[in-house]
Amino acid sequence: MHRSVSLPIGMFDSGVGGLTVLKALRDRLPCEDILYLGDTARLPYGTKSPETVSRYAVQASGKLVDRGVKLLVVACNTASSVALDALRAAYPAIPVIGVVEPGAQASCAASRTGSIAVIATESTIRGNAYQKAIHALRPEAHVLGRPCPLFVPLAEEGWLDGALVEGIAARYLDPIFAGEVAGPAEERPDCLVLGCTHFPLLAGAIRNVIGPEVAMVDSAETTARAVEAELGRQGLLRTAPGCGTSRFLTTDDVSRFARTGSLFLGMTIGVDDVELVDL
Amino acid sequence: MHRSVSLPIGMFDSGVGGLTVLKALRDRLPCEDILYLGDTARLPYGTKSPETVSRYAVQASGKLVDRGVKLLVVACNTASSVALDALRAAYPAIPVIGVVEPGAQASCAASRTGSIAVIATESTIRGNAYQKAIHALRPEAHVLGRPCPLFVPLAEEGWLDGALVEGIAARYLDPIFAGEVAGPAEERPDCLVLGCTHFPLLAGAIRNVIGPEVAMVDSAETTARAVEAELGRQGLLRTAPGCGTSRFLTTDDVSRFARTGSLFLGMTIGVDDVELVDL
Repeated sequence: MHRSVSLPIGMFDSGVGGLTVLKALRDRLPCEDILYLGDTARLPYGTKSPETVSRYAVQASGKLVDRGVKLLVVACNTASSVALDALRAAYPAIPVIGVVEPGAQASCAASRTGSIAVIATESTIRGNAYQKAIHALRPEAHVLGRPCPLFVPLAEEGWLDGALVEGIAARYLDPIFAGEVAGPAEERPDCLVLGCTHFPLLAGAIRNVIGPEVAMVDSAETTARAVEAELGRQGLLRTAPGCGTSRFLTTDDVSRFARTGSLFLGMTIGVDDVELVDL
Repeated sequence: MHRSVSLPIGMFDSGVGGLTVLKALRDRLPCEDILYLGDTARLPYGTKSPETVSRYAVQASGKLVDRGVKLLVVACNTASSVALDALRAAYPAIPVIGVVEPGAQASCAASRTGSIAVIATESTIRGNAYQKAIHALRPEAHVLGRPCPLFVPLAEEGWLDGALVEGIAARYLDPIFAGEVAGPAEERPDCLVLGCTHFPLLAGAIRNVIGPEVAMVDSAETTARAVEAELGRQGLLRTAPGCGTSRFLTTDDVSRFARTGSLFLGMTIGVDDVELVDL
């Protein structure tokens, strides 16, 4: 057995949003240990410059690498958009998987027409990361990006459905999927990528706004598949029976991380499972 | 004339929200030069721990002190709540004025009943800074605090009025000022403190929700008065005719600062007036 098999998978995010990716990974690979770092002291990454995000990503990942991890998941769309090259240069011995490429793959598979909308934070959209990743797979695709900054605090408040949430979603999405400004029905996107790890919590409200016909891609599930494939390729998959553990590191208030994180993970995180670290 | 009179007033905030305070200061003291630092690379401060906010505040203020300022305005409610002691210890030669105490003074003057509501970021509310400042002036006051995290991205999106904004405001404020849960009318607060520098942009929508009877206190104007008084006390008021200048420092994207900042300042900030600095 490869000596690294027993090491945990390292994941990091600017905060708790990446826990939606952890949840998908846990469902798919229940034997793996996972060490998650949420850089809550410096969130959100989505409003920061690419240089700042890359620097923070290398620092956060360094903390995980120091503890020993066999693979690094960048469970943050902003960092996946701008920091993968810097991370691979900084830690060449460790496979690095982001959430953008798996999401792009899933959207190319789901779209019939090749017209794909992406919603994300402002910096993910400005960086055109999904557009580039989708065009690499499907050069003729038409990709339309829309930042939805209010979705992040909505998810963190736990305001996940109802008229108000759908009203905000409609203000962002109607110009793309409905109404006079959206263009002829046949030219509208037939696929919507949730390009921020917070957004799956609002999937029900978003579905009510875009209607049943539009395919909705959440990159958490597709990222979990990509992690499984990469670990398999490297002979690092842990297949022993029994349940893996999840441990959490945060750069700010432990009790706040446990409380908000439980909402994103869909199960209770105990304060004892969270450790405060300085970067 | 005191040799420091000609120095600018230094102001800092985690981002662009403090520009509502700069605007009030410019209206009141048009002859003064102002040097403003927005620590946009690390915003928002409102979700961070008091220790982290204090450390960031001392770093940001150090940059202004190095350039030479005659007084320091902490134009950020979160930092004013937790970092004033650290700032006064770090820079003992420079008067430091925050936004919390002037806002508390104004609310004590405006409330007839002594029942006062404060809306702010989560960390300002958790830190009880307004409660402490109000109780120091009016020990029998009843202070009710409510975090309103969605107001910050609403202001930054420029979604300042209309049904959606009032719907969000109502979700936060109806439990305090209206409806079954708000308690008997005579026990409801008769004063609302806008305890975050972003919130004055939403004052119209907030007014429509709370009705015409509740006094609304915005600490920008009262902070400007406090600055004038302190400069006068120290013989540092600049009274020469002519218009003072405003210069801006930011720790992240200059063009984004100029664009969003213009919304908060109510006038255009040129990219040439903004300088990128590293803390």
